[in-house]
Amino acid sequence: MTEQNIVIIGCGAGGGTAAQFARKTNRKANITIFEQGKYPQYSKCALPYVISGTIPSFSQLIEFNTDWFKNAKIDLYLQTTVESIDKDKHLVTAITSDGSIVKKKYFALILATGAYSSIPPVKNIVHDNQLIKGVFSLRTLDDAQNIHAHIKKGMNATVIGAGLIGLEMADCLHTKGMHVTIVEALPTILSNTLDQDLSSFVENKIKEDITLFTNHIAIDAHVDKDAISSVIIKDRSTHETKTVPTDLLVIAAGTKPEITLAKQAGCSIGETGGIKIDRKCLTSQKDIYAVGDCTEFIDFVTKKPVGIGLGSIAVRQGITAGINAAGETCLLPDGVLQTCTSDFFGIEIAAVGPSATAMSDFELLIGKHLGSSLPTYFPGGKPITLKTIIDAETGKILAAQAVGSNAAQRINSYATAILAGLTINVFRKLETAYAPPIAPTLDVVTLAADVAAIKQERRNKQ
Amino acid sequence: MTEQNIVIIGCGAGGGTAAQFARKTNRKANITIFEQGKYPQYSKCALPYVISGTIPSFSQLIEFNTDWFKNAKIDLYLQTTVESIDKDKHLVTAITSDGSIVKKKYFALILATGAYSSIPPVKNIVHDNQLIKGVFSLRTLDDAQNIHAHIKKGMNATVIGAGLIGLEMADCLHTKGMHVTIVEALPTILSNTLDQDLSSFVENKIKEDITLFTNHIAIDAHVDKDAISSVIIKDRSTHETKTVPTDLLVIAAGTKPEITLAKQAGCSIGETGGIKIDRKCLTSQKDIYAVGDCTEFIDFVTKKPVGIGLGSIAVRQGITAGINAAGETCLLPDGVLQTCTSDFFGIEIAAVGPSATAMSDFELLIGKHLGSSLPTYFPGGKPITLKTIIDAETGKILAAQAVGSNAAQRINSYATAILAGLTINVFRKLETAYAPPIAPTLDVVTLAADVAAIKQERRNKQ
Repeated sequence: MTEQNIVIIGCGAGGGTAAQFARKTNRKANITIFEQGKYPQYSKCALPYVISGTIPSFSQLIEFNTDWFKNAKIDLYLQTTVESIDKDKHLVTAITSDGSIVKKKYFALILATGAYSSIPPVKNIVHDNQLIKGVFSLRTLDDAQNIHAHIKKGMNATVIGAGLIGLEMADCLHTKGMHVTIVEALPTILSNTLDQDLSSFVENKIKEDITLFTNHIAIDAHVDKDAISSVIIKDRSTHETKTVPTDLLVIAAGTKPEITLAKQAGCSIGETGGIKIDRKCLTSQKDIYAVGDCTEFIDFVTKKPVGIGLGSIAVRQGITAGINAAGETCLLPDGVLQTCTSDFFGIEIAAVGPSATAMSDFELLIGKHLGSSLPTYFPGGKPITLKTIIDAETGKILAAQAVGSNAAQRINSYATAILAGLTINVFRKLETAYAPPIAPTLDVVTLAADVAAIKQERRNKQ
Repeated sequence: MTEQNIVIIGCGAGGGTAAQFARKTNRKANITIFEQGKYPQYSKCALPYVISGTIPSFSQLIEFNTDWFKNAKIDLYLQTTVESIDKDKHLVTAITSDGSIVKKKYFALILATGAYSSIPPVKNIVHDNQLIKGVFSLRTLDDAQNIHAHIKKGMNATVIGAGLIGLEMADCLHTKGMHVTIVEALPTILSNTLDQDLSSFVENKIKEDITLFTNHIAIDAHVDKDAISSVIIKDRSTHETKTVPTDLLVIAAGTKPEITLAKQAGCSIGETGGIKIDRKCLTSQKDIYAVGDCTEFIDFVTKKPVGIGLGSIAVRQGITAGINAAGETCLLPDGVLQTCTSDFFGIEIAAVGPSATAMSDFELLIGKHLGSSLPTYFPGGKPITLKTIIDAETGKILAAQAVGSNAAQRINSYATAILAGLTINVFRKLETAYAPPIAPTLDVVTLAADVAAIKQERRNKQ
């Protein structure tokens, strides 16, 4: 039997976690990680909060440092680029920062190559294959440090993209005293996360602090002394253009899975552009696993493929791949729930389940309730709106969205219900925890369920 | 067919809710409520928070006032005592405050007679069948008003009973600047809600602010000018006694279901002392329903009878009884989850599932995790300990307890899992909502589940 070498490409949340769980599972395996960047495993999701100053320093984001990997007897090569994978010889060839070549045979290989930022076709923002001065994407710790070094109070900042990361960045730049404009190509913000009825609530709230252009695309940039000075945006309906003074442009217009090595190794790529994996995180190639943002997996509800873009899923895939690569068996659930949350401009949002488009095969019914976090008589209650989407035919809960107090933990109850395949009729009778200072007798969690359940009853009577 | 008269005895959370849902279900039914007290439906659970001053006035606790009932065409008789139920004639006889007699035929009768405080056998606290001056139980709005009128900053207050209500009262009296002592007969506090490992954490915290005697019973009281001046307590192990100076004694030593009328009507009483009901809230007598603290129902997990003592369950039973009494069908889940929560001395606690004693038929495995509400690198994370109890054989989740940040909403995910009959192996893979300012990548919710799941795996390998 070949020596049990586990090779991992990429030390983000997925790759780092895979290494840890491979080690936990198998004390004797040789584990090697090749990481292109300068840093061991750090929290990418927390980068905006260092920029805003909430977290005092970038070094705090490093969750597992080089010593940790050394103690765990995991060979971590930083600033090392994998050049090729020879799947027949089970061999990986990498080049370190000093130009030396490292070759590793693998018994199991885990691809954790992540994703890169999509750069929209805005004229003049790229020069010599590089973003010009003042223009940044936010993907790595270096990106964040560069943004941090660039920002000054009173500057004009423009963010392209009103998804979770765009809004988190807008909030953090606003916190730093900048004048922030967000440009979003779609008619609504947060379109991957919330339906329009809920996102419009967030939209109204953030407009108190920043300028928002939805249904607009950035088309061009003015440059002054090699640095950006303004962005030209265009209304997608009227084609009218506007000039937005911009000292700092942050691009948060989505990401694309990094699959160069995966393709080279012959791994099948799915329709979303990510590496296809099974419940063990195995790719189509023998002994090659993949985890995190470079992959796609099926959605739990629709069983259709979805791209992976959440750190929480990357970690769960890392656990799974690590255990399997180390010789034991661990299976992912039969699809991802896509539970997610964020907090910006003082609003907590959360969601679980597929997007509205992905649910087009179902006849949908919606239950929505606008309530309070506390009983009406108790001071300090905060608004919370919760919406659930069910399959009209079976009554099964498919998705839920929430905006307001403790949205995330409330959505976790829905995530549990979806994972368990509960129907709305069973879930609506959930006994939620009640006490005047904590939650109302009937929480918005079940009040929204009641609305959906009643709609389903009526439909079934017809 | 008899005219559709629905008669409800008691206008607490259970009775009031039953009336509302009977009305929603049937616009034509005649609905009558007989309530002994002076007030329409109010929140009993919130009484301590008016005493503490958090809620400015008692009138705010009235969730549905007399006008509300009038508008809903519900005949609400306050200060009216039901004298008898003639189950054969389907007739209720009541006496109003002015001594007049009201007779109502019923098509459906709902007993919502609640419970009364257990008064422990402490010498000298009862005189002429009444608690002496300075001694109170906390059951009604009048009780709370009497306590409120009696308290003064700097007074010595003693609370008998360290259950949820005892601790809520102790916190509120402490907030009012009183010197508070709690006397608890059992060796641990919160014994109905938390296991000792978790309750001891709460115990240590509350001892910073108050004096606590566990394993002690109050045996006697000293009286000065007809009012209490001190309480004599006895250590149950050493039999040593102590004198606790006491200007105010609050008795929070549990309750007993009020079943006088139910017995008279021939309703079966269960082994816990509450009225036996089925999933429609029907008692053993035709057309007689019962809801709330006067009832017992089966526990969802053990299917053994348990007394009902939670407002949240009373409301859910009220909904069920109201709908059934009004001619449609509504079923309770197959048992109560007993999800509960509270907040005192700055600690949120929550629990779901049967007590440890009630689970004695199962071989139990425990998963416990002490974590933080936020990722370690994010400032402001608060401790949260979560514990889950599973059936070693099947892996089914039976119960969970939590102490700390957002304990209640975290326990709601466990309540959902129990309601759905999930095993720990499925639940541990729940994708919880993650974002640095909101929750860690792996929440304590699933980390505790992991511990239990790993123990079960090991057991099954043996």
